[in-house]
Amino acid sequence: MGPQPGGAPRNRRRAGIREVISVRLARLVRAHNQRHDRKQRADAHDLSTLYRRYIDCLNRRDWVSLGEFVAQDAIHNGRVTGLAGYRAILEQDVRDIPDLRFEIELLVAEPPLIACRLRFDCTPRKVFLGLPVDGRRIAFSENVFYAWRDGKIAQVWSVIDKAAIEAQL
Amino acid sequence: MGPQPGGAPRNRRRAGIREVISVRLARLVRAHNQRHDRKQRADAHDLSTLYRRYIDCLNRRDWVSLGEFVAQDAIHNGRVTGLAGYRAILEQDVRDIPDLRFEIELLVAEPPLIACRLRFDCTPRKVFLGLPVDGRRIAFSENVFYAWRDGKIAQVWSVIDKAAIEAQL
Repeated sequence: MGPQPGGAPRNRRRAGIREVISVRLARLVRAHNQRHDRKQRADAHDLSTLYRRYIDCLNRRDWVSLGEFVAQDAIHNGRVTGLAGYRAILEQDVRDIPDLRFEIELLVAEPPLIACRLRFDCTPRKVFLGLPVDGRRIAFSENVFYAWRDGKIAQVWSVIDKAAIEAQL
Repeated sequence: MGPQPGGAPRNRRRAGIREVISVRLARLVRAHNQRHDRKQRADAHDLSTLYRRYIDCLNRRDWVSLGEFVAQDAIHNGRVTGLAGYRAILEQDVRDIPDLRFEIELLVAEPPLIACRLRFDCTPRKVFLGLPVDGRRIAFSENVFYAWRDGKIAQVWSVIDKAAIEAQL
């Protein structure tokens, strides 16, 4: 029931104003939605990006930078290792498995949590997880959860597929 | 550079129209954002809710309803079990562990993926994962990923903490 074309000049002016408003409104709403979409995805995306940088740090053996990703009071599988203990675990892993390389197979981010399925294809020199691998090449997965706090890993719940390694020996 | 208060009647009318537009615009944008927020969270929330219903289904031993949650061509740890094979695995688990109960400890949803850390506190009757549990009560975790397709579990990547069970025997 809007003003008819060819109506009074006042009605035509109002119709013109309405059209301008309608176009501007649609543009504003669209811009707002886009910003909102980006924000929502950004949180999960940022944490995933941070996690990928953490994995790169491990693959570079860049232990000095580990504190950028791991909290001073970090907990690993129920044990308060702290950053120093966390680093010690990683350094021992690399001594046992010189060609250790972390590959992300699946990554699920819902801040403040991240879950990752890591894939390993490597050659432990002697005993690994109590198994006498003795220089054989093995492939296995680790399914691991991380709770982040203030941009750092505060807690880790990791399970390594030991049965898969046993099946290869 | 808007119209001044107390200007010509035409300018006052325009100022009034602008205020009405401004209020309506703010209201519209707010409503849009709220709908959008809900939509974003809803996707992850819906999948989490669906997953919790799946876990309830397992705890009820409601095998007849399993097809509501598991795809006909489901893949479990790299093996195409299908729905029938998936059900067979669960039925065997319950035969081996009559008091088996699935408890969600951590849940991470980023559709179409879900990751869950499940907690078990149960009494396997004889051998479980090749270990002679023989009626002892054990507690352990399973870290598991699911890929969903059309509202059903299409693929599962599960790792059970066998080392934790060994440590309790």
